[in-house]
Amino acid sequence: VSFSLTILGSSSALPTSKRFTSAHLLNVDERLYLIDCGEGVQMQLRRFKIRFGKINHIFISHVHGDHILGLFGLLSSFNLLGRKEPLHIFSHHDLQKIISPNLQWLLGECQFPIVYHPVKPSGSELIFEDDKLTVHSIPLKHRIPTVGFLFREKSRMRNIKKEAIEKYELNFGEIVKIKDGADLRTKEGLVVSNNELTDPSFRQRSYAYCSDTAYYESIIPIISGVDLLYHEATFLHKELKRAKDNFHSTALQAATIAEKAKVKKLLIGHYSARYKDVTPLLDEAKNIFPDTEAVEDGDIYNVELSK
Amino acid sequence: VSFSLTILGSSSALPTSKRFTSAHLLNVDERLYLIDCGEGVQMQLRRFKIRFGKINHIFISHVHGDHILGLFGLLSSFNLLGRKEPLHIFSHHDLQKIISPNLQWLLGECQFPIVYHPVKPSGSELIFEDDKLTVHSIPLKHRIPTVGFLFREKSRMRNIKKEAIEKYELNFGEIVKIKDGADLRTKEGLVVSNNELTDPSFRQRSYAYCSDTAYYESIIPIISGVDLLYHEATFLHKELKRAKDNFHSTALQAATIAEKAKVKKLLIGHYSARYKDVTPLLDEAKNIFPDTEAVEDGDIYNVELSK
Repeated sequence: VSFSLTILGSSSALPTSKRFTSAHLLNVDERLYLIDCGEGVQMQLRRFKIRFGKINHIFISHVHGDHILGLFGLLSSFNLLGRKEPLHIFSHHDLQKIISPNLQWLLGECQFPIVYHPVKPSGSELIFEDDKLTVHSIPLKHRIPTVGFLFREKSRMRNIKKEAIEKYELNFGEIVKIKDGADLRTKEGLVVSNNELTDPSFRQRSYAYCSDTAYYESIIPIISGVDLLYHEATFLHKELKRAKDNFHSTALQAATIAEKAKVKKLLIGHYSARYKDVTPLLDEAKNIFPDTEAVEDGDIYNVELSK
Repeated sequence: VSFSLTILGSSSALPTSKRFTSAHLLNVDERLYLIDCGEGVQMQLRRFKIRFGKINHIFISHVHGDHILGLFGLLSSFNLLGRKEPLHIFSHHDLQKIISPNLQWLLGECQFPIVYHPVKPSGSELIFEDDKLTVHSIPLKHRIPTVGFLFREKSRMRNIKKEAIEKYELNFGEIVKIKDGADLRTKEGLVVSNNELTDPSFRQRSYAYCSDTAYYESIIPIISGVDLLYHEATFLHKELKRAKDNFHSTALQAATIAEKAKVKKLLIGHYSARYKDVTPLLDEAKNIFPDTEAVEDGDIYNVELSK
């Protein structure tokens, strides 16, 4: 069962010859969730051979151009390709005000429903769930209302042991209850504890996307212990003033958040176009939080199943 | 003195992993003219190492997304990079109605003037000139009002012979008049014809951009004899019905126009995404007009100086 993240764009506001603007794609068991949508997302999806017709859910952090301009082309291509499936977009309500007036010239007749789900910029809350995962908002600190997103697998049922099914001649109803955590009461009136009948389920994997944001400790309890944290690191810490002025973070600050939140792995990105080589940003972060990686367009990060 | 065309996008409405949507860049003596502006133009400009801050003139054929979506990101980057120079945009007046309402969220405060020059979709007329060239509109036949563009170098002054300057002891005023085509009247009252004093100037080079359009013979007199003709060839001729229904051309039709207009070289592009390999389109065109090339993103076509 996959839980993997593909980086579609790793640059900040100005793209470079190597880096497109912000966009991530999370694949959870072959269901695709798009997170932010910078210019050229549809080209990146094609380049990385992602069947983007399968995207039904898009999460937008904030309505700056480098996070939303790819929506226009993506919507246009969905329409040209005959999409009928509803497309769900989660974002601040300003996004709808931006997109809607452009649909007429862009699409003519839109063939599929676009369902906007407004996300409040303050207070973390459950904004989406399906049978695979839950998504919570993460209020961030930026020039305009901005939220990150916490994706977490749903708790899985416990794995029943084969030998237990045989030994106790379990029927279907009993199996379902046991997988759900119940103990077994045998015909003889004996109670067999669930631990004896099952193996523990796999851990729920999680991914937190935090971009764009200034250094903001309020997010720490929300993202505590996640497997993967993506935190923007637009500048080196020697550009702290510039980072603060623009409500962005330095690599050192991203690593500090990761360290305080005790996450398993930190990914940094959203680099200022001034850094062609991002090794200095990576080094700065690793100094605080060793398990850091600096993302590049096309990188894939898998979170493996574990108990 | 350069007169060269760079292909920034060769696909039709749907980009592919190899081909971005429509955009060309014409470089005339290091002055850059952008023609159409599909999504991702700014990334292509960077990829092909074009100093795009030098672009002051953009010509838009029509307001379909695959010809204009790159404008948003380009305007945003111009603004972020501190552009102050006016940007001149030549297009149907609908473009301004599309762009203007988006500027507030896209740019905040726009730091540079955007000057819209409305182009009428009927009747070829001079829409722009500077000291390097003239640009005439070419009315095309498409679903919405669409024009192509004819770029032609301005006539150059004749090259005065060194030996003539010495022989007749020409002063500055005389040289200017002779370069402009005048004969010389010597102090002795003798008339020396301009042909004896000068070499002929170079030929005026020309480029015609015709996309998107159905087969439309009315353009032939306008583009007659151009050095380079770009004519869309969205489909193979066996898809003629589909081409007609969508007001596009087949490769055979593009070549027929080239042949009837007696152009020097034909470039085809704007391929339907169904053609990963465009050799069949090229073969079909070459069968009618041998000097055809099928463009790909990043191709550069130079027109050399000749007399």
